Amino acid sequence: MVEKKEGILFVVSGPSGVGKGTVINEVLKVIPDINLSVSYTTRPPRKNETNGKEYFFVSEEEFDRMINDGEFLEWARVHGNFYGTPRSFIEEKLGENKDVILEIDTQGARQVKRIFPDGVFIFILPPSIEALLTRLRGRGTDCERDIEIRLRNARDELSEWEWYNYIVVNETVSFSKDLIASIILAERCRSSRLEMKGI
Amino acid sequence: MVEKKEGILFVVSGPSGVGKGTVINEVLKVIPDINLSVSYTTRPPRKNETNGKEYFFVSEEEFDRMINDGEFLEWARVHGNFYGTPRSFIEEKLGENKDVILEIDTQGARQVKRIFPDGVFIFILPPSIEALLTRLRGRGTDCERDIEIRLRNARDELSEWEWYNYIVVNETVSFSKDLIASIILAERCRSSRLEMKGI
Repeated sequence: MVEKKEGILFVVSGPSGVGKGTVINEVLKVIPDINLSVSYTTRPPRKNETNGKEYFFVSEEEFDRMINDGEFLEWARVHGNFYGTPRSFIEEKLGENKDVILEIDTQGARQVKRIFPDGVFIFILPPSIEALLTRLRGRGTDCERDIEIRLRNARDELSEWEWYNYIVVNETVSFSKDLIASIILAERCRSSRLEMKGI
Repeated sequence: MVEKKEGILFVVSGPSGVGKGTVINEVLKVIPDINLSVSYTTRPPRKNETNGKEYFFVSEEEFDRMINDGEFLEWARVHGNFYGTPRSFIEEKLGENKDVILEIDTQGARQVKRIFPDGVFIFILPPSIEALLTRLRGRGTDCERDIEIRLRNARDELSEWEWYNYIVVNETVSFSKDLIASIILAERCRSSRLEMKGI
């Protein structure tokens, strides 16, 4: 009686270090029928990271080729490494009426918004500026000037919140997971995303 | 850091007999911090119904007085009985930043939409026309002409779905409860309903 018009793109962003990846991993456990878009990067894998899970790890030459062949929806250079969101995976899944979830920094989210204005943009906030500062301080640098730069960057990123559809304050991973899962279920019920057949 | 601007009004509607009341009762169990708006009626209570729970049961004289004193947000006469949604309860709760949930027929929902355009309107659908027909046939009348009239009314009510924010297909009470609870949690995260303090 009711049918989905097309797959929905869910974009999760927020300041770096806010815990986007951890929350998304939990969301995938409770919403198994959503497809995680895995980004490409030229940075070397950390221990515990698996190629194709957290990222596809590629060489700079391969990344360049992908840029030139138009294989990225968006890409950026961050701290000397390249990061890119592959276009074909997202387009294929959405075309098959399947939903996709994507974790991305705030700059990338803006670019994706231009290409997918009907996407659902979710901004994850730290519970407080103090909590963010504690996290930044705990990140292994003692230089206060660096921390000031990071905090300024974080404030810039935080000021992006307004154009997002949803704001999730990351008090606990478990509750943030519940909220994002709720947003996914709710968006699937939006009348603008549905069409009625056979009334 | 993030604060809600004001209470949210959730309005649940749909064709009669679709199971709105049953689903809302389940939602109240999982979202305890939402306030159910109880309507007034002049129809006599059924067994199992308690004054102030399903409805406030009042005399026609009292109902007339309430109409004249402007105490209803909307009211309607259905099958010879009067039904009305009290204005003050909803306005008070929303003013206190608290959310309200309201069950109402499709005619009433239209009127409430005019007064609360920012409300969240949820339309409950039967899983199929056949399911609705089975329900209508099972409702204790053998006259096919009556069933035809009811089915035509139901089709008219169903055609209202498009202006609602969300559509919930009532496959099972339990899943419909999950979906409406998700819609409530998601709407509380909508950036348009929030304001940022102290960044």
